[in-house]
Formats: sequence, C-alpha cells, structure tokens
Amino acid sequence: MNEVNTGLFEFIRFNGKDAVRVEEEIVEEFPLTVLLNGQEFATMVCSPTNMEELLIGFLASEGIIRFYEEIRNLSMDESTGFAYIDLYREVDIHDLDHSKRFIGSCCGKSRQFYFKSDVKTAKTITSQLPIAVEQCYNLMQELQIRSEQFRRTGGVHNAGLATPEGLLEVRTDIGRHNALDKIYGTVLKQKISLKDKLIVFSGRISSEVLLKISKIGVGIILSKSAPTNLALNLAEDLGITVIGFARETKMNVYTHPERILELNKESCSN
Amino acid sequence: MNEVNTGLFEFIRFNGKDAVRVEEEIVEEFPLTVLLNGQEFATMVCSPTNMEELLIGFLASEGIIRFYEEIRNLSMDESTGFAYIDLYREVDIHDLDHSKRFIGSCCGKSRQFYFKSDVKTAKTITSQLPIAVEQCYNLMQELQIRSEQFRRTGGVHNAGLATPEGLLEVRTDIGRHNALDKIYGTVLKQKISLKDKLIVFSGRISSEVLLKISKIGVGIILSKSAPTNLALNLAEDLGITVIGFARETKMNVYTHPERILELNKESCSN
Repeated sequence: MNEVNTGLFEFIRFNGKDAVRVEEEIVEEFPLTVLLNGQEFATMVCSPTNMEELLIGFLASEGIIRFYEEIRNLSMDESTGFAYIDLYREVDIHDLDHSKRFIGSCCGKSRQFYFKSDVKTAKTITSQLPIAVEQCYNLMQELQIRSEQFRRTGGVHNAGLATPEGLLEVRTDIGRHNALDKIYGTVLKQKISLKDKLIVFSGRISSEVLLKISKIGVGIILSKSAPTNLALNLAEDLGITVIGFARETKMNVYTHPERILELNKESCSN
Repeated sequence: MNEVNTGLFEFIRFNGKDAVRVEEEIVEEFPLTVLLNGQEFATMVCSPTNMEELLIGFLASEGIIRFYEEIRNLSMDESTGFAYIDLYREVDIHDLDHSKRFIGSCCGKSRQFYFKSDVKTAKTITSQLPIAVEQCYNLMQELQIRSEQFRRTGGVHNAGLATPEGLLEVRTDIGRHNALDKIYGTVLKQKISLKDKLIVFSGRISSEVLLKISKIGVGIILSKSAPTNLALNLAEDLGITVIGFARETKMNVYTHPERILELNKESCSN
C-alpha cells in the first residue's frame, strides 16, 4: 500500500460559469530535515510515506553510503519533521558541501534556507487585480496554443506573463523553475509593472513555485496542474489567488477568490 | 517565439507489436555553468532559449540581485555552456553557500558535481535481461492501476521495481527523485538482486533520472513520459535501455533495443 497522506481542502470549482464549493484531497508536501551524525545535512520536501526507504535511498544517491549496513541508527520524529541518521563512520558535513541545503521536491531547485528566509522575504501581494472566469479559460487556451513544443516532444513547461486580456510573454523550459525564472528576468530587465499582471503556468503549483510567484510579485497564478497543501497554506498567508486544474471550461479556485470577478459580485449581492 | 532547440534522434516506435524506425525531435537539456564575479557559482540544466532572462531571473530568485541594474556585465559562450556575470558589488561565493552546486532542471535535486563525478561513478549496466513488448505494456498498465493517488489529486509520481512478469514494489512521492530514492532504499535495505529487475516510472527521463537508474543498477527504464537528449546520450554510454511514452499499446524504444525480445529475435533472424 502506498497511500500518500493528504489533507482535505475546501475550494471553489468552476464548470463554465457555475461555481460550487467542494472539499477534496490535496496532495501533501512534507518537509523532512535530515541530521546526519548530529549535523544538519539537508531539508527535503516529500510525500510522507516510506520515509525510511527514502532516507536510505537519498544517502545512497548522494554517495554518502553504499550499503544499508553503514547506518548505525535511523530514527524519525514525524511530528517535528526531523530525521536522525547516525553512520558508523564519521562524516564532515562541510566536506560534503551539503550543509543546510534545501532540497526541493520534484522540480525543486534546492534553494537555501527555503522556509527560514524565503518565507520571511516573500512579498505579501496586495494588488486586487480582478479577473473573470472566461478570461482565465481564454488565457489557459492561449498558453496551450503557444505551447507547440510541448505537444511535439512532451518535455517542456510553459510560463506566461499576462493581463486578464491576454498573454504578453511566454517562456519555455524543460525546468518549471527555469520557465518562471525566464519570466522573472524579463520582468526585471524590461521593468514591467506587475499591478495588472498574472502568471499562467503549465506545471504543478508546489510551495517553491508559489514562493517564486510571490517574489516576482503577482497576485494570481493560473495553472493547468494541481497545487500542493503547502503551496495553498503559503498562498493564503501571502495573499495569492491560486487557480489550478484550469482546463477548457473548468477550473478550481483554491485561495483568495476575491479576485475572481464573478465571486466578488456574488459576495457583494449577498 | 519560444522555440526550444531540439535534436533529432532515431528510435524504434512500437504500435502493438509492430515496430517502425523513426527519427523525431527530442527535448534538449542544456547544461549552463554560471561564473559570478569570476567564481563558479552554479550549473543549471535548461532549455537553451532566453538564457539571458533565465540568468537574471535566477539571480533574483536566489536573492543575489533585486534590480537588473546591479549587473555590470553578462555574457555567454553557448559553445562551451559558460555564462559570465559580473555585478557592481563584490560577492563572496562561499558566503552564499552555493559554491559549485549543481542545480538540476525541473525535478533536479541539485546534486553536487553532477557531470564530473556522477558520470564517472555511474555503473555501466551489463545485465541482459530480456523483456517482451507485451510485458512492457502490462507493467505500465499495472503501475497506472496502482497509482490511485495520482488520479485523485493529480500531484504525485510513481516508481515501480519490477521483473518482466510484474511489479514487486511501488513507491509514490510528489518528487520524481524521491519516488526513485524510495525504491533505491528498498533495494538496499532488502538486498534485492537487480539482475532480473527493471524500473517502471511515471515521470520524465531526465539526465538526473537516468543517472539514478544507473546508480541503482538496473538496465531498463520504462516510462510513460518523454526522455531528454542528455538522458539518451548517457543511456547509450551506460548500457541502459530507455523506453518512453509507454501508453496502452504504444511505446518508443530509444536506446539499447537489444533487451527487447522481439527486436533481438528479429536481429537474429536477419
């Protein structure tokens, strides 16, 4: 059995222009910090299943161990997210050049001090750019049309900078983070004002993606893929509207629905 | 225009049991090494488009710069894959704790000295486990059936350890690499012999995934997703059979087709 623990999350599902409030499972990102021989070695984000095997495989992948027998002791405190691994041999963490490195989940870029500094420096988004449901569908379709490469080789991600009226720039990369960094670089170089902008994206909305959206400084992320629980928690705090599973005429609004024109009107008329 | 440069690659496409040799584009992974103020800072794998914007966005994401104007000079040598960035201010790379860190593409785990040491220590696979096309289809279907979670939340990857006859272990994670590390840990802990084993996988076969397959020590990777050019080059060298886009009764055999029973027979009868 490989059940991945997930939490229920309440969100708004649009089918065309009809909105219903639903509660469904969201995939969990679990931050696991590894102390190797008592020294902080790495923090990885994972699904909280088979974590012992994950730690063994991770150490082997990193070239720290070759055999299971090299491990003297392995224990975990799931409530705090700490894993304690002691090897029979001594290890100088600094020689490994891994000290306190953050290792992301799939598509993670191992950014340093992820939760410590990133979250502190991440900007809370106050812009109240309104967007209509129909505009979201159109933007997603526009990104699909401009994603020829993905259809040809099945291997790239797309990130678009858009106003509610249409896509301005599209950047493509095999790496989700790179596609977003290309947009970020474009914004900085061209000094593009972000007040009326949103990001349209092909990839999953992980906590790392969400933090990058916040750093770039836009208030809406629209993706055809799923968000994670950690990303949604951050989005709630940082004031970012997360729209996921946007495909044809369906989409889910997970956080800060006040930017969705139809929902805003509705709440006004109540 | 956001053309991603791709190379043509010749491979064998199966439709049911019919094999045709085709030549198609493969998505490119381009390793880009960044020298910041003359010091080696990071190597990232990317699609070779809009690389200037990528570098600017990357530096901003990493908190190295806040404005484009902080960059004194930015140049690139595409033939060698080196980018030279000079800032107006001095930067001590070691303070940044980023020295010579490898930053993977999407799903990269920023493994150290990726190309330098990993490729050297990666095992060349000599096992000649034969597998029939039908067995590949069945294994992929079995992985799909056992991937309930993916269908529910759309957010996880699956890696399976299998013999040609069926799946033995399936591990699930939001991170592609974590799913494979969980399999690797299982193999090490249970001392599973890999002679008659292959890996069945849901994610893209990047160079990092391919290297992990080689470290684990199996000769066949079967995935429903696409491979990259760098992964295929490594697979050729390391003796690994890469089967991609395996869906229902179709699949592509990219490298070392001699392990595919039908192709082996054919070559014998010629």
